[in-house]
Amino acid sequence: MVTLDEIRPVIGKELDEFELRFKDSMKSNVPLLDKITYYLIKRRGKQIRPMLVFLSAGLNGKMNDSTYRAAALIELLHTATLVHDDVVDETYRRRGFFSINALWKNKVAVLVGDYLLSRGLLLAVSNKEFQLLEIVSKAVQKMSEGELLQIEKTRKLNIAEEEYYEIIACKTASLVAACCASGALSVGMSEDVVKKMWEIGELMGMAFQLKDDLLDYGSGQDIGKPIGTDIKEKKMSLPLIYALKESSYFEKKRIINMIKNQSKEPEIIEEIFNFVKDKGGLEYAKKTMLDYREKAKVMLSDMPESQYKSAFMNVIEFVTERKN
Amino acid sequence: MVTLDEIRPVIGKELDEFELRFKDSMKSNVPLLDKITYYLIKRRGKQIRPMLVFLSAGLNGKMNDSTYRAAALIELLHTATLVHDDVVDETYRRRGFFSINALWKNKVAVLVGDYLLSRGLLLAVSNKEFQLLEIVSKAVQKMSEGELLQIEKTRKLNIAEEEYYEIIACKTASLVAACCASGALSVGMSEDVVKKMWEIGELMGMAFQLKDDLLDYGSGQDIGKPIGTDIKEKKMSLPLIYALKESSYFEKKRIINMIKNQSKEPEIIEEIFNFVKDKGGLEYAKKTMLDYREKAKVMLSDMPESQYKSAFMNVIEFVTERKN
Repeated sequence: MVTLDEIRPVIGKELDEFELRFKDSMKSNVPLLDKITYYLIKRRGKQIRPMLVFLSAGLNGKMNDSTYRAAALIELLHTATLVHDDVVDETYRRRGFFSINALWKNKVAVLVGDYLLSRGLLLAVSNKEFQLLEIVSKAVQKMSEGELLQIEKTRKLNIAEEEYYEIIACKTASLVAACCASGALSVGMSEDVVKKMWEIGELMGMAFQLKDDLLDYGSGQDIGKPIGTDIKEKKMSLPLIYALKESSYFEKKRIINMIKNQSKEPEIIEEIFNFVKDKGGLEYAKKTMLDYREKAKVMLSDMPESQYKSAFMNVIEFVTERKN
Repeated sequence: MVTLDEIRPVIGKELDEFELRFKDSMKSNVPLLDKITYYLIKRRGKQIRPMLVFLSAGLNGKMNDSTYRAAALIELLHTATLVHDDVVDETYRRRGFFSINALWKNKVAVLVGDYLLSRGLLLAVSNKEFQLLEIVSKAVQKMSEGELLQIEKTRKLNIAEEEYYEIIACKTASLVAACCASGALSVGMSEDVVKKMWEIGELMGMAFQLKDDLLDYGSGQDIGKPIGTDIKEKKMSLPLIYALKESSYFEKKRIINMIKNQSKEPEIIEEIFNFVKDKGGLEYAKKTMLDYREKAKVMLSDMPESQYKSAFMNVIEFVTERKN
């Protein structure tokens, strides 16, 4: 089982330097804002996104200041969307910390997100990183479109498999793709290589989201992470979509009604879990995830050998093997 | 009394064309999103911001495609911040319409705002409007900083006059300044002229916000607009700040306690209104507003004569004379 601790040393120096620069880029002259960004920095996650920017740069050339800026822009953006997501999902905890809107209310969460976004923009604009901006703005647009599409479909409790792929391609895979593409861009790669790295990232992002959706069914996860959150929020992910497709008209209707009216009751969630498992939904989603992973690996295998390439392969492995 | 209907004909053709392009720029492939943006277009306000972009361009040269893009970027951005403000202020009505978050919940409002922002970005990036982007990103950063500063100060119910100016310079004047600067930029003006137009816009924006704050005290407004909203939300604007400064220690304490504990009761609001009026707070704020207006007009008077200049003067007049 690959861990991030094995991968990190390959770009350890860069990540340390990045941390310093990233913290610096968040400084403001509003004390409340500094208090919040300090808190945000503390609660940060695995930092897979900056890792991907650095690995993708190392894979294609020599990391430089543009690489740091790409990583900082994407991390600022990712942090902004997490803060906005806190409002979006009415979440009160994230990674064991209280969310910003639980501590400071929705209005502060929205404004802090906007502030981080504008800091990221200015960082790119003032360094004339225009191609980077184009890659990243496209990702932002896709992310909000994907979330809105999901909300729309959620309301109708009727998502086709293809629609699910479209949603996760937008809401998750586009930012992972932007990481990989912008890393390659930062070391001066041609449009073709940048496009190829985008595609590798997109495939990896699809696998990442499928893993997330599987973890929500408790599939392959270690103890401690809440499960059933998606069903509680009436979000339909691939395991459920597949299980419903494999069901009779009446069975489908019965399950949909449960989700519609009783999705917060533990025994109902358990019944739906068993239904999904019995219909092969978990297996199917896992198989799909591994297909995406395999495609990403095949594309990556064309690239020249280096320590970055091995580490990149390991990240792809980690994304689908992680337990939380 | 100047009305916008007198000013509009000077750039009528451009504004009509702009409307078409603006609607087009909002189109998406998410039905829910299209429904919401259609609704947003219907509820739009006076369109002072695009007017300023066009007038500032006309004043300095020949309007062109860049001018339209500047107007569209700023209007997308302004619409995005209004949608986010709906969450921010927990407002349920705006301009007689329900707010997006009242109709579709906070999460949709946040995402729609992010979507509009990214559309604006892409419009600028894909047309290589990089200086425009720099002007506008600075404004976005200032706007969110200003709002956060206001929230921080609101909590303490202790704002000095200088801090009030800093807040409104950030949260309101920076975007008006960006309108004027980007209009001049779009017709190829030098850095000096762009800077000068920024300053004129900033002064006008200060006057605009002071007028808004006065209208909230019912000062000079026609019937129909709710008053006392700022006090209800414990926001301190110049009339109150000045009145408190002119008060004894005990009087000040009494009023602050009222705001802290009973700011939503109609008789308390009336008492505070009378206090502000008696202390000369309204007069002082009006005088300050007229000072900003005068400075803006003096700076503008240096510019070459044209129909755009006269219309621009009229907009400055309108901003401080409007009744709602």
